[in-house]
Amino acid sequence: MILGFDADDTLWHNEDEFQASHRTFEALMADFADHDHVNETLLGIERRNLDRYGFGVKAFTLSMIECAVELSNGSATGSVIGEIVELGQTLLDRPTELIDGVEEVLEELGAHTKILITKGDLYHQTSRIEASGLQPHFWKTRVVAHKNPQTYAEVLAQHDINPAEFIMIGNSLPSDVLPVLEIGGRAVHVPYHVTWAVELHDGEHDAPELESLRDLPDLLREWGVH
Amino acid sequence: MILGFDADDTLWHNEDEFQASHRTFEALMADFADHDHVNETLLGIERRNLDRYGFGVKAFTLSMIECAVELSNGSATGSVIGEIVELGQTLLDRPTELIDGVEEVLEELGAHTKILITKGDLYHQTSRIEASGLQPHFWKTRVVAHKNPQTYAEVLAQHDINPAEFIMIGNSLPSDVLPVLEIGGRAVHVPYHVTWAVELHDGEHDAPELESLRDLPDLLREWGVH
Repeated sequence: MILGFDADDTLWHNEDEFQASHRTFEALMADFADHDHVNETLLGIERRNLDRYGFGVKAFTLSMIECAVELSNGSATGSVIGEIVELGQTLLDRPTELIDGVEEVLEELGAHTKILITKGDLYHQTSRIEASGLQPHFWKTRVVAHKNPQTYAEVLAQHDINPAEFIMIGNSLPSDVLPVLEIGGRAVHVPYHVTWAVELHDGEHDAPELESLRDLPDLLREWGVH
Repeated sequence: MILGFDADDTLWHNEDEFQASHRTFEALMADFADHDHVNETLLGIERRNLDRYGFGVKAFTLSMIECAVELSNGSATGSVIGEIVELGQTLLDRPTELIDGVEEVLEELGAHTKILITKGDLYHQTSRIEASGLQPHFWKTRVVAHKNPQTYAEVLAQHDINPAEFIMIGNSLPSDVLPVLEIGGRAVHVPYHVTWAVELHDGEHDAPELESLRDLPDLLREWGVH
């Protein structure tokens, strides 16, 4: 049995700082719109740009800038735009902070073959994997553009993994759980305390939900996975 | 023998449109600085951001925006910034235009195993590979963060390719030619008519230079490569 691990908000903190950036962005836009209008407009622009920009901090920064231009009808100053650029750079430069228990759990699961599958910006994810120090725990690490059934099927095929012998562990229902169930794998949902609106999903599924990654070894023992 | 192909400016046009964007950006900055100062400042910002942003259009767009804020001392208007955002989006949305002769040459080399190795933004490169229609010619396609000796060694090892059995074809000396020679492979330099300043290199090497990809099949025959 091969274990797949998501990275952002599963192994290390990510969305909490994005949420903090939203609050800073709302404050920068206070002259032009109220919080709700800022967030609605930004989310609309992010969704509109998803096919073009993909996921990640650079995409988020460009969407914030586009949002500032739109909300201010072009009157936002270069100084405000400069603060948004810096906001994005702060996100990129953020140290990789592991979620509580991650190292112990990966250690405890040392006998299992593990693959890290993360989506997003190639440069940022590559540098985060390096900075995390977790690489030695993983047989393979892969950065993919999308986490859909097709991508999972391709990654598993490339590494000669039978989907029936694969368990994906992650915080996102649409990215980590549902597409893996769809191709005949198993999945474990470990929610993060905040979720990006684009990753919200209320679909039905029968994957178990764990409160903490610390509960994973017990679940695997229950499943008889060695 | 396995043939590796670079993509941007080797299989399809890329840098010409980047250069055109530089001209548009110079015009947008005309109130704040002359052309030379704009280009020097932008190149300095691009180099400074390379480790953080990596290569690609989103990185270029963010560096142009940072440059506009810097050159204008924060006085550039949101409207000008909006035009820069659109300049980047136009680059991303550009149709993939193949370089003259590419399809015929790939067709002629149909008996050879070919791998496409491109660096840059995962989303943009993935969508360009799809849009190019060239995927069926390639055994594998890989988007990498950096083209250095280590990355080439890793990619070749992952696909069980002996460097001595590998020939890389591309337009960039520092990205396509020198690192492959360094790990014991062969390389063919096919310059594009314009080169990004960051990809310029005057190092010594003994890789052959071709005027056009159309000359590749003859060179391979000379080398006795089947």
